[in-house]
Amino acid sequence: MEKCIEKYKKLDNIDIDFLIDLLGKDRVFVGEDINADYSHDELGGVSKYPDAMVEVLSAQEVSKIMAYAYKNNIPVVARGSGTGLVGSSVPIEGGIMINLTKMNNILELDEDNLTLTLEPGVLLMDIGKFVESHDLFYPPDPGEKSATIGGNVSTNAGGMRAVKYGVTRDYVRGLEVVLPNGKILEFGGKIVKNSSGYSIKDLICGSEGTLGIITKIILKLVPLPKKSISLLIPFPDLNRAISTVPKIIKSKAVPTAIEFMQREVILAAEEFLGKKFPDNSSDAYLLLTFDGNSKEQIEGDYEKVADICLKEGALDVYITDTDERKESVWSARGAFLEAVKATTTEMDECDVVVPRNRVAEFVKYTNEVQDKFNIRIRSFGHAGDGNLHVYILRDDLSEDEWHKKLSGVFDCLYKKSEELEGAVSGEHGIGYAKKKYIRRQYGEEYIELMRNIKLAFDPKNILNPDKVCE
Amino acid sequence: MEKCIEKYKKLDNIDIDFLIDLLGKDRVFVGEDINADYSHDELGGVSKYPDAMVEVLSAQEVSKIMAYAYKNNIPVVARGSGTGLVGSSVPIEGGIMINLTKMNNILELDEDNLTLTLEPGVLLMDIGKFVESHDLFYPPDPGEKSATIGGNVSTNAGGMRAVKYGVTRDYVRGLEVVLPNGKILEFGGKIVKNSSGYSIKDLICGSEGTLGIITKIILKLVPLPKKSISLLIPFPDLNRAISTVPKIIKSKAVPTAIEFMQREVILAAEEFLGKKFPDNSSDAYLLLTFDGNSKEQIEGDYEKVADICLKEGALDVYITDTDERKESVWSARGAFLEAVKATTTEMDECDVVVPRNRVAEFVKYTNEVQDKFNIRIRSFGHAGDGNLHVYILRDDLSEDEWHKKLSGVFDCLYKKSEELEGAVSGEHGIGYAKKKYIRRQYGEEYIELMRNIKLAFDPKNILNPDKVCE
Repeated sequence: MEKCIEKYKKLDNIDIDFLIDLLGKDRVFVGEDINADYSHDELGGVSKYPDAMVEVLSAQEVSKIMAYAYKNNIPVVARGSGTGLVGSSVPIEGGIMINLTKMNNILELDEDNLTLTLEPGVLLMDIGKFVESHDLFYPPDPGEKSATIGGNVSTNAGGMRAVKYGVTRDYVRGLEVVLPNGKILEFGGKIVKNSSGYSIKDLICGSEGTLGIITKIILKLVPLPKKSISLLIPFPDLNRAISTVPKIIKSKAVPTAIEFMQREVILAAEEFLGKKFPDNSSDAYLLLTFDGNSKEQIEGDYEKVADICLKEGALDVYITDTDERKESVWSARGAFLEAVKATTTEMDECDVVVPRNRVAEFVKYTNEVQDKFNIRIRSFGHAGDGNLHVYILRDDLSEDEWHKKLSGVFDCLYKKSEELEGAVSGEHGIGYAKKKYIRRQYGEEYIELMRNIKLAFDPKNILNPDKVCE
Repeated sequence: MEKCIEKYKKLDNIDIDFLIDLLGKDRVFVGEDINADYSHDELGGVSKYPDAMVEVLSAQEVSKIMAYAYKNNIPVVARGSGTGLVGSSVPIEGGIMINLTKMNNILELDEDNLTLTLEPGVLLMDIGKFVESHDLFYPPDPGEKSATIGGNVSTNAGGMRAVKYGVTRDYVRGLEVVLPNGKILEFGGKIVKNSSGYSIKDLICGSEGTLGIITKIILKLVPLPKKSISLLIPFPDLNRAISTVPKIIKSKAVPTAIEFMQREVILAAEEFLGKKFPDNSSDAYLLLTFDGNSKEQIEGDYEKVADICLKEGALDVYITDTDERKESVWSARGAFLEAVKATTTEMDECDVVVPRNRVAEFVKYTNEVQDKFNIRIRSFGHAGDGNLHVYILRDDLSEDEWHKKLSGVFDCLYKKSEELEGAVSGEHGIGYAKKKYIRRQYGEEYIELMRNIKLAFDPKNILNPDKVCE
């Protein structure tokens, strides 16, 4: 498949009129009326304005726009809250940006089937609140709570609770999707099992808006665990903290989450939030959560884990079982990204995932890379599921030095993750920014297969072009 | 895509010589040396011999055969134990059948990462035994324990424990796959999270051997629950039994399994096994299991459920907590298919899945269909996940009457499941036998999309042709 920029039609007045006729003037934005926010996502680095940004309210509107774009060969990008970190929702080829944030209705809670049906623009934070008020639980817990559920499904977002509960994909029962040609199809449904043909639902999930536009989602819910407890466990150094994790997994305890953090990131979070963390005297920490239906049920697990940690050299074990203390710990954890960002001028990130027993080796290596390139690197993340967030900080580097060093650092980190049988992205996706690295790891044969799948959905390559496998 | 039988090359002596050169004489079977078993699967109805049946021992052998077949346009079908029920592994176009049952090595138990790596020919019964001896658990529990894990992944097999634990897909972390052109690729791995491009692993899973041949599987394991308990609950009639299930789900108790069964199926199982079921005096039963790490942990759940059942009209609640009693109940449940089969001359089955709160309505409807067509229908299945196994029995019907009635019954049942927002197959797949019904439910646009995906993998359409979407 050749790149074919020249083949896309540039939006003209007739096209704009079509959009205004369909949606009304108030929901069509052109030229300078488009807010700069719509030209990039959260981490920046990749930037481009759409020719038109439109707000949609229904699958039918999305369908009509897609059918029109398909007929006229106009590129289209779907966008939620724009909290992505790899440029997935940046309209590299211009064209129409379909903003789905106003499709934000929770449509149905079905307590017989334990499902929640909603529009893609519903925010993650609103799902949690809603279902918990019905004594139900949507386990995926990505840090960015202002993301839309459509965005979460599109990147197969992971989050903290993946150790016990899995990722977004595991909770998507059904999807309504507008295909690149404008047709509306439904994949899956409220059913628990399904072996009726290829699982297109699972293919759409994680495809970063390149195969279709999600207009309705049916989520699986589970009963809300009645009790949870967090353990904050200081260690003399990071290596010892992380090396303990495979021993925890092997012990057959089932924590809900296992996060690792270093003192310097905690200090940044304290400064950013203006709030004290319960302890900041040690070099490294593990933060674990356990949940279940009774104190007795989780007690056995966390006592076993506390013993393992102490045996492996932990300095102490702080139990946080009040809402207040949990809030202080987890709000700090939730602010890490923003806190680190606030300490520098610009940053970029690496979201590798490695097998759980290779995390220590990877983190050790990031320290070597930090020294080798003489650049600040901060990392934290999900020790329990092997997904690391490594932030490379620009500080006062010149544009030139920054790009040179960044490229060298990324090269090293992604090569290392490949060597450890990991993958380029655990939960942030490939988008535009990480294409180079996925291609290097997977090779041409694999990328070609992905491209063929893309063409099976989108033969004109108009939906979110230049992403993932192109 | 046109059907193109004439385009396939018929196997000649040169092709046979190629196979013998590669595998040796002992692993290549041609003509009358091919056992009749290889011409059909478990339920029969669809039958055809391959031109050659070969036994393979490695991914490299599979790769060389596929590359040769691709070059020479020879159809290929992969086969495990042949326990399928929809003709997925029947070589409709002849050609080469690749028998994977000798690739049956368990390659690695990784206790740090809780994964099990194995070849596709390992039998389900051997996985359970192996991992449980290490205090670990592979939750999927399809009734047919002599199926291969490769077959289970290919149909996304479900089984009894899906209520709590999900289906095969949920436990597949990585796959090694030989593509139709002979290339060997790996999808996923030991990693827990992955957002690195399209989830091809999930597409292969459930694709019934039409997109690639699975040569290695990495399964996710969980800690083995230390306690389990079963409840056998008699009800005065089936409707009352099944109508109780959504109330159990709504109560937020989490049973591992909820099966329903009727007296007549229990009697057939007693006769078939020559063993008594603990109780056969009532018209209908629910059989539930609960598991966890302590009696206390599951007690709360099953006491709540027992109360709900009694309130809804259950006649009694039998607790089976000894291994012996559990064995007697569950071995009967495991024998239902064979037992029903033994009562008739021939049978066919319908494996629909509907939302859990529509099961009662569907079962009631099968009784109406039984009366309307004056044919024996027996059903049992997974009330807790909405997946029903409905068996239509031929008894002494003539060939002509049988096919006429069967077609009429299937038409009614699949239309009903569609009406109830269900799907054609919960766990047995589409294969050859159910193509008509998936097409009717999904429509041409959907089938066309599946066909395009098939062509993305297999542009010459040589791998397991005529299945699923063709």
